[in-house]
Amino acid sequence: MDARSRPRRAEVVGTGLIGGSLALALRAAGWHVTGSDRDPATARRARDLGVVDAVGEDPDAELTFVAVPVGAVADAAGAALERGGVVTDVGSVKAPVVAAVGHPRFVGGHPMAGTEALGVDGARADLFDGAAWVLTPDDRTDPEALMLVHQVVRSLGAEVLTLSPADHDRLVATVSHVPHLAAATLMGVAAGRAEEHAALLRLAAGGFRDMTRIAAGDPGIWIDICRDNRDAILEVFDTLLDSMATMRDVVAGGDAEGLRSRLGAAQRARRSLPTGAPAPELLAEVRVRVADQPGELAAVTTLATAMGINVFDIEVAHAAEQTGGMLILVVAEGSATELCAALADSGRRASAHPLGEGK
Amino acid sequence: MDARSRPRRAEVVGTGLIGGSLALALRAAGWHVTGSDRDPATARRARDLGVVDAVGEDPDAELTFVAVPVGAVADAAGAALERGGVVTDVGSVKAPVVAAVGHPRFVGGHPMAGTEALGVDGARADLFDGAAWVLTPDDRTDPEALMLVHQVVRSLGAEVLTLSPADHDRLVATVSHVPHLAAATLMGVAAGRAEEHAALLRLAAGGFRDMTRIAAGDPGIWIDICRDNRDAILEVFDTLLDSMATMRDVVAGGDAEGLRSRLGAAQRARRSLPTGAPAPELLAEVRVRVADQPGELAAVTTLATAMGINVFDIEVAHAAEQTGGMLILVVAEGSATELCAALADSGRRASAHPLGEGK
Repeated sequence: MDARSRPRRAEVVGTGLIGGSLALALRAAGWHVTGSDRDPATARRARDLGVVDAVGEDPDAELTFVAVPVGAVADAAGAALERGGVVTDVGSVKAPVVAAVGHPRFVGGHPMAGTEALGVDGARADLFDGAAWVLTPDDRTDPEALMLVHQVVRSLGAEVLTLSPADHDRLVATVSHVPHLAAATLMGVAAGRAEEHAALLRLAAGGFRDMTRIAAGDPGIWIDICRDNRDAILEVFDTLLDSMATMRDVVAGGDAEGLRSRLGAAQRARRSLPTGAPAPELLAEVRVRVADQPGELAAVTTLATAMGINVFDIEVAHAAEQTGGMLILVVAEGSATELCAALADSGRRASAHPLGEGK
Repeated sequence: MDARSRPRRAEVVGTGLIGGSLALALRAAGWHVTGSDRDPATARRARDLGVVDAVGEDPDAELTFVAVPVGAVADAAGAALERGGVVTDVGSVKAPVVAAVGHPRFVGGHPMAGTEALGVDGARADLFDGAAWVLTPDDRTDPEALMLVHQVVRSLGAEVLTLSPADHDRLVATVSHVPHLAAATLMGVAAGRAEEHAALLRLAAGGFRDMTRIAAGDPGIWIDICRDNRDAILEVFDTLLDSMATMRDVVAGGDAEGLRSRLGAAQRARRSLPTGAPAPELLAEVRVRVADQPGELAAVTTLATAMGINVFDIEVAHAAEQTGGMLILVVAEGSATELCAALADSGRRASAHPLGEGK
């Protein structure tokens, strides 16, 4: 067989909704995907459904996605790293996992899509199309490993955001974990009052349904998340409790202007929530000379994400005549100058070069 | 003109989204609808769009719907009552309005649909189809007025729930007002943290979007609601705050079983939320002899709602030979016996009679 016709090989550990969707998306992109699951029947079902090519482990896998519950990621990632290749995961909590795995070929990841535990039967090849996907490299991460995961994730249609593991955990506590706990609490309060009056839940219109929808999800995954992201969740939860107590006092005090200003700020913020992937736009390359030391790629991509700049692609050009290398980031043309300036501020030499229309 | 071919006449005060949708639905059912608005241009636009037949007031209106902000209902209802006919409103708070109007021909009402202030251009004839619509009669309410409003509201496709004004206010505080304030607070916390990290709101996936959707609504109406339903809102808000503080402690204490039980209860409650209108079912008449005194009809329909029993239709048959009358409630056949028993417990004579398939 000619090497170029041989498909790239990936492995998926855990063939539930996320793992199954990953396998489908990778196969659609031409990869050979081997899948396994703690429950052998689930893996066999994934094969029977055409979600994976084969059941088991693949010592030749270039990339392994660990798609198991947060509490089981470290062990599964460790085993996959022993088999070789680059390993990433999809868990909702990153700092403890990244610390526990601690390996240059491991890149923490978290696609922000499909948290409902629907199993392999809900798997869809397009689940990640337009979704945000966080990668959390640290100082130990091999730049080649980060680039590989970035490129593959981008090829599945996701938008990559690079964050430190700790930043990731704080941000998802705010937009996912605490909202889930708040939705469940609100649903619990309403259910308690429904026992006093049978009509209550029949009055629940669209707004209430929207707010409590996520409370219908499987409690199982939240036990792990609340244990593994406990500190960040508590910090955000306390902020929310303080803010709710203030809102209560505004209502109690009949402070119409205070209420209007709070509700108006929330309205503006909600209306300006980014929706889906950014529109196609002119792209530019930002070339930045990086020192030949671990963590440079992570530092540069994390800086871009912190500035709200989407990195569409990453490449490294090694120059033979000198140490270090040239890192090439593809970003929106309108952000390129700003990114160069920030990179210069951080002591790195950077330049921007228009690419024309892309994406 | 032959009396039978003459259309029934209704008036709508306030031709925004709700008033405009009411006018469209009434016109579709053959009514002649006159509309007015605090802003004359809005009323003219309603006429130009074919939402109302005429602009102004209609002294011959059999029924007037007051569809203005909560704070303006009492004055508008008082003026409409002076013109004659039965008057109802659509405000989100009932106890202060019903107390302020205090008239036998006024029936407080609240359709649980379309709170977004989109104006007359968003009006739809089917807005109330399958929606819950609360009526809040009290001891003063003329039974004929209650029956008229019940029948007209039913004819627009809504499901009528009869509650005391105070019960209504407590229940909507739980399923609407406090959830709105909580959504706005959550959005505010996230927006505050977004200032620290540009990536935060790009991580907001479906659950967060669902939970905060209602916060995108116009703050204006909530100022009135928070003033007029202050006590019920504070009572529910305090329950929610207590419950959130407990949830926080469960997470802080690493109490996996406590967390599982709370999230599990919320999951079950959310999954069992009633959806839309009940399926067609066999109907029965419940005939109940009522004393000839005010409040009897309100008491009987409120009792049915408190039992979770949907009243599809109401009629009163006056027997010539005796005082009082026979009230006929059309309910699901499966609920008829239970309702009769409860009516008997309340000292009323009642009997059930199957009607066959209905609705």
